[in-house]
Amino acid sequence: MVLDDAAAMRQALACARSVEGRTSPRPPVGAVVVRDGEVIGQGATAPPYGPHAEVFALREAGERARGATLYVTLEPCCITRHTPPCTEAVIAAGIRRVVVAICDPNPHVCEQGIAQLRAAGIEVTVGVGEEEAREIIQPFLFYISKGRPYVTAKWAMTLDGKLATRTGDSRWISGPRSRLRVHQLRDRVDAILVGAGTLRQDDPQLTVRLPEELRGKPRQGPLRVVISASGNVPQQSRLFSSELAEGTCLIVGEGSERRELLQRLRERGVSVLAAPLDARNQVDLDAALRLLAQEKDCMHVLLEGGSHLLGSALDCRLVDHVQVFIAPKVVGGSTASSPVAGVGLALMSDAFQLQHMYTEIVEHDMLIEGDIYYGPGDGN
Amino acid sequence: MVLDDAAAMRQALACARSVEGRTSPRPPVGAVVVRDGEVIGQGATAPPYGPHAEVFALREAGERARGATLYVTLEPCCITRHTPPCTEAVIAAGIRRVVVAICDPNPHVCEQGIAQLRAAGIEVTVGVGEEEAREIIQPFLFYISKGRPYVTAKWAMTLDGKLATRTGDSRWISGPRSRLRVHQLRDRVDAILVGAGTLRQDDPQLTVRLPEELRGKPRQGPLRVVISASGNVPQQSRLFSSELAEGTCLIVGEGSERRELLQRLRERGVSVLAAPLDARNQVDLDAALRLLAQEKDCMHVLLEGGSHLLGSALDCRLVDHVQVFIAPKVVGGSTASSPVAGVGLALMSDAFQLQHMYTEIVEHDMLIEGDIYYGPGDGN
Repeated sequence: MVLDDAAAMRQALACARSVEGRTSPRPPVGAVVVRDGEVIGQGATAPPYGPHAEVFALREAGERARGATLYVTLEPCCITRHTPPCTEAVIAAGIRRVVVAICDPNPHVCEQGIAQLRAAGIEVTVGVGEEEAREIIQPFLFYISKGRPYVTAKWAMTLDGKLATRTGDSRWISGPRSRLRVHQLRDRVDAILVGAGTLRQDDPQLTVRLPEELRGKPRQGPLRVVISASGNVPQQSRLFSSELAEGTCLIVGEGSERRELLQRLRERGVSVLAAPLDARNQVDLDAALRLLAQEKDCMHVLLEGGSHLLGSALDCRLVDHVQVFIAPKVVGGSTASSPVAGVGLALMSDAFQLQHMYTEIVEHDMLIEGDIYYGPGDGN
Repeated sequence: MVLDDAAAMRQALACARSVEGRTSPRPPVGAVVVRDGEVIGQGATAPPYGPHAEVFALREAGERARGATLYVTLEPCCITRHTPPCTEAVIAAGIRRVVVAICDPNPHVCEQGIAQLRAAGIEVTVGVGEEEAREIIQPFLFYISKGRPYVTAKWAMTLDGKLATRTGDSRWISGPRSRLRVHQLRDRVDAILVGAGTLRQDDPQLTVRLPEELRGKPRQGPLRVVISASGNVPQQSRLFSSELAEGTCLIVGEGSERRELLQRLRERGVSVLAAPLDARNQVDLDAALRLLAQEKDCMHVLLEGGSHLLGSALDCRLVDHVQVFIAPKVVGGSTASSPVAGVGLALMSDAFQLQHMYTEIVEHDMLIEGDIYYGPGDGN
């Protein structure tokens, strides 16, 4: 089958997807080299400070790259940072045409790479696969423009809006295929956050458990993060076990008095960070997210609950995207948890709207996904 | 266009739909007479104790019915109750063939009408449009077999499972088209029930507000029912106004001490009924529903909330069908109401499942509809 521009770019986008959560603090980018309608090389951004996607694709194509077309999800860079400029590599390889999904979001270098390619006599087309390419680098854009990670919140609830039964039981609300989707989302983020209540109630592992064929490229799992203002966490939690402690981070309120406990956790390998408290004596979430960006290079974090953490995040307008599973079952109960607590809004007419909504039936569950729009003041 | 059996039966089913909520205590039935692939007569069950659907259809067809085919959603009756047997009318009209969606659910007369028609030399086909025909008479079946109305519960909630904001504001959760759908549902039921809390909070009218083309046949609106254990209801509510009091019913707990108030409401035209209290000093919902069946011929009631009424109904396993609208918006709030309160279940694995699920995107909202299955003991 001979690939057209759209189909070739879809392969480049798939390459980019395969390294989501693995490129921080750089954006995930994918590239393919096509000759006579056939892919002869492909690549994706390597782990931090390694070569860029184009270089891998050109390397794989080798001599056959001469006269071929390069598809790349982001404009090739034209400046030397940790690696030589990709534009030089593209020119040197003898590429005849470059198809770019989107230009560099950095206004200081935007279209400079394209200009260099054109100056070298290469034909450049821009905008193929633009929408998906923009979606893929959205977390990176947040990270560089706002200094905090892009925040996706995920919850599963019953048809009567419950996160758990009145006894706190939540296994399982959604079906196996929905849970697989959650693991696919985990596989794409830099960190997974839960509150101390969820740690106590569910004792989660926050690992990515997926069959090989559904995973992206090999990686260390996403960082596991627990937020606890008091630092009063059960030290026998699975996240603090010898197996998981190394990739686990605990964010406590500044001035936490559990110094001995924190020291013991540090000795096991847990990374302990301190963030300021807000007016309600909770960890200031915005500050915690900024810490994760600065200290841990997190560009995309996933909030998995519980309802207090999700509520605080929404109160602070820090949730950028939601993934919600609704299971076709009903449990009732006036004391059963609802997915999002916090202070909440007073008026329904002020409700935060979902934009770019996507819906799908996953086995028996309903998946609703979209971006949260906070109203006219929302810069998103 | 020449109609085939399926298409002709669809018209008969539409006739039946047009009188849902208008035939109690008899089932809604539709009939069409087709000759040379063309409808020459149609009819539906008349208001209580009037002629049956077949009679109207045959009347409209007149002499042309001779040799034609009759499509009817329920087996024609063969016994005299309030009207002469329909089988006689069919035979007298000279109908050549009868197509029946389902047989009479009463085991004592089931297939007797069909036998009479066949004995008169009429060809009879059974089972065309069976599924929808069964759905249409489902409330009637509940009414005759269980002595209580079929119960549909409806709620609208936000994507974070809220029925209202923390201040109780709920206008509007869902969009105009979803609200139109609710009015279409109201138009099909015998009664709409709300709890006293909803009366106080929302002061609803519980009327059917629909453009002409979306309504069924002309009718008195559905009965408006308020349930209040204490009988302590605000008498200035719109439901008790001179305009609405006549079609409003108040069900109070036996022994309510608000005798004067109840007397005043009766004088305005409100029908006041008393039902026993349950162990939690709430109106025993099963008893209240039976009262509505006995005293008001209700075959299908719609529970519109609030969360306490829905919770009690679910705790008693009295909800047969749900219609849920999920709006793509988030309001948060640990004290905001969730749609179903009550005691609720302890284990997620015991959750009541939705069966025969139907989903549709209505404007921006997600509609999920289905029957509630209460587990192996469920006779439904």
